[in-house]
Amino acid sequence: MTTKKRILSEHIVEPPPGLWSNCLAVGPVVYIAGLTAFDIGEMKTLASDEYQQARVIFQHMRALLTAAGGTIDDIVKLTIFLTDVSKNTDVWRARQEFFTGDFPVCSLVEVKALTRPDLLVEIEGIAHIGSSAKPSAS
Amino acid sequence: MTTKKRILSEHIVEPPPGLWSNCLAVGPVVYIAGLTAFDIGEMKTLASDEYQQARVIFQHMRALLTAAGGTIDDIVKLTIFLTDVSKNTDVWRARQEFFTGDFPVCSLVEVKALTRPDLLVEIEGIAHIGSSAKPSAS
Amino acid sequence: MTTKKRILSEHIVEPPPGLWSNCLAVGPVVYIAGLTAFDIGEMKTLASDEYQQARVIFQHMRALLTAAGGTIDDIVKLTIFLTDVSKNTDVWRARQEFFTGDFPVCSLVEVKALTRPDLLVEIEGIAHIGSSAKPSAS
Repeated sequence: MTTKKRILSEHIVEPPPGLWSNCLAVGPVVYIAGLTAFDIGEMKTLASDEYQQARVIFQHMRALLTAAGGTIDDIVKLTIFLTDVSKNTDVWRARQEFFTGDFPVCSLVEVKALTRPDLLVEIEGIAHIGSSAKPSAS
Repeated sequence: MTTKKRILSEHIVEPPPGLWSNCLAVGPVVYIAGLTAFDIGEMKTLASDEYQQARVIFQHMRALLTAAGGTIDDIVKLTIFLTDVSKNTDVWRARQEFFTGDFPVCSLVEVKALTRPDLLVEIEGIAHIGSSAKPSAS
Repeated sequence: MTTKKRILSEHIVEPPPGLWSNCLAVGPVVYIAGLTAFDIGEMKTLASDEYQQARVIFQHMRALLTAAGGTIDDIVKLTIFLTDVSKNTDVWRARQEFFTGDFPVCSLVEVKALTRPDLLVEIEGIAHIGSSAKPSAS
């Protein structure tokens, strides 16, 4: 049996106990919560448009994957929740600054609202640590 | 190759064949459908507010995980779909009555509607059986 | 470490590099993007109602799973995003034409919009290759 391990990064504030974990690993599989640009420590939203909010989220995902012993390219699945689906290309632009190689599979939908009116983007992910490694030449 | 196994509990009614499974296990990984407080057997919704509907859902998740040989704390990922995102704290309150330790990662969004107007909450989950076990002292 | 492998099918057009993958496999686990009836090659939507759009999506899922060495019945989890939740039974009807045995667990919600106004359905999936195999008699 493989026990779950909470992945912590100094770059992202965890919520208080009894709410949720930002990131859990079970063996090589890593689950990342639906992240937003809301900073729980500062109690404020860190950016005001889709592009910048997505950048904050991907920075946090990168920090969490690094803390888990992997890289952001180990993410194989993303779900992107937007409050305005016409801004999808802004999120795509942010994503292109963080990922290389075969991009994650992705769903993208417009939801009615996120937890705060100033939040425009929420993104969750599943990663497999080591999955982005190039097969070694032989 | 590991075959999928349908997980059944006497506490939750399965839909008729040809629709969906409430819970499937593939080895230690358990997938739980987006559950609601709608009782397929009685053809009625079991509770009328977010807190009570979430309680029904978490009771069902607990029953399914028990039937799968695990516990509700083996859930590592939740997605919560609400029809009124301002009720998020009601769902959090219900969740605190069921989970201990490191809580699952979670996404939470407001959708436009669920399959019936009296349904206010739908929650899906992924669990890894045994993942909440404390590493044994040695 | 298991590296991810992009699954390609001649029956579904991949987006250009830097956007997303339609399907990635990590060992036996297969992640399928939120697929729609939009044909990226032809730049047009292939069907005009929920039933037909869902059929296109399930045809693509079947092609991708076949390319991955499995079958559509290896899908264990679906998430269905609809722009009109009252059309859920049309998607169910399409699904019944593609799946056999224990159906996948499923979430189904109404979202505010998908990426184009003529898109009515988006469906994502997770599969475990070989999971639908019948245990051999012994």
